[in-house]
Amino acid sequence: MNQTIELLKKHRSIRKYTDKTISKEIIETIVEAGQYASTSSYVQAYSVIRVNDKSNREKLYTWSGEQKNVLNAPEFLIFCADLNRVQEACLSHDTHMSDGFIEWLLIASVDVSLVAQNVMIAAESLGLGGVYVGGIRNEAEKVSEMLNLPDRVYPIFGLCLGYPDQDPETKPRLPLQMILHEESYQVIDQVALSEYDELIESYYERRTKGKLIQTWTKQMADKADRENRPHMMRFLNDKKYANR
Amino acid sequence: MNQTIELLKKHRSIRKYTDKTISKEIIETIVEAGQYASTSSYVQAYSVIRVNDKSNREKLYTWSGEQKNVLNAPEFLIFCADLNRVQEACLSHDTHMSDGFIEWLLIASVDVSLVAQNVMIAAESLGLGGVYVGGIRNEAEKVSEMLNLPDRVYPIFGLCLGYPDQDPETKPRLPLQMILHEESYQVIDQVALSEYDELIESYYERRTKGKLIQTWTKQMADKADRENRPHMMRFLNDKKYANR
Repeated sequence: MNQTIELLKKHRSIRKYTDKTISKEIIETIVEAGQYASTSSYVQAYSVIRVNDKSNREKLYTWSGEQKNVLNAPEFLIFCADLNRVQEACLSHDTHMSDGFIEWLLIASVDVSLVAQNVMIAAESLGLGGVYVGGIRNEAEKVSEMLNLPDRVYPIFGLCLGYPDQDPETKPRLPLQMILHEESYQVIDQVALSEYDELIESYYERRTKGKLIQTWTKQMADKADRENRPHMMRFLNDKKYANR
Repeated sequence: MNQTIELLKKHRSIRKYTDKTISKEIIETIVEAGQYASTSSYVQAYSVIRVNDKSNREKLYTWSGEQKNVLNAPEFLIFCADLNRVQEACLSHDTHMSDGFIEWLLIASVDVSLVAQNVMIAAESLGLGGVYVGGIRNEAEKVSEMLNLPDRVYPIFGLCLGYPDQDPETKPRLPLQMILHEESYQVIDQVALSEYDELIESYYERRTKGKLIQTWTKQMADKADRENRPHMMRFLNDKKYANR
């Protein structure tokens, strides 16, 4: 193991921050490091929008489920899938952008996620901590209007960043053997899954001092048993991302 | 700048590898490091399938556009978005998985991308090099059959890994000021875009010794002006990922 791998394995979401601000230089350094992530056919289908204006933060806080970290983080970056520049390239060379294929949604969503993970790691390597905020998709259209996003640009998640004012333990992941398959997909190992459930139950009990006792499968079963942001299909359609 | 950020900024795709094999221990180390990436509501919606069987590699090589690296890489990992375990959790707790929302496609695709980028970085930190292969989506259904993927599991990209037998320069990214916006989306800076086009033109000319002279916008305009994997919508629909 080396320093980088140690850093990756130490990751946990940080939701409380000291008052220390993050310099603009650091933001530029970590976003630039982000850009060196691989990009599908060189499209670089992403934009990052810094939102630090207080009234904008208040809106985002309300829209994304009232997580205090959205209000309080020294920095809040919104990551967007962005094919607007590709469309511009088409215009300037008299070709026609093949809008609407869901493949574009995958390309742009993967591109921006790879960048974001680089940004997270670069930030953590500098002593910062953060948490992704998928909750901005609760009100994707309002976020989009607030940020003035054109067609072909959609907000995928936010990232709160700051100097950590908490030190939570890392959250146990599914056992490696359930994730890593050989040559073909292995059916679910029920014994391993039960053991994981027990592990998570005691993890929550310890971390919440007995207030929450829940297995992983119960948490998933409850989460998945309801409509999941049903407005997103129309929103992505409108943004020219998933019509065909 | 520190070692980790230097590592991120040194990234370039590696498509030629020495004969040196990668130990199973290293694969396990980097995939486990991958798992510590953030995951939306703890769903851990991903699986990684090692494909090293020669005849399977030959199929993947044909399907994904005949890139030699798919045949020759010491390791080929296929990253899958995976909600099969969540569905299993629903079954075991008598709840009902809310299949088909495109939001699930985003959740799982982001989850697996964050993991993959951690795996890439962990690999690079150990002296390995690699390249993502989105080309497996050319034949998503055949890949899915070969790997025995159940409903709610879809292959998003492959990752070739090996010890580098080439040392290409890094590919210049869009200027930071075009990617990083303040408070709201800035319109495209045409001057910056033209300068970038010139930079890329000379980059290709230098790298290909004059064989390819092309700007970024021209490359994008040509790429975007055609149907983009039009089979993907039906495939994702069948996998219960994008029906509503």
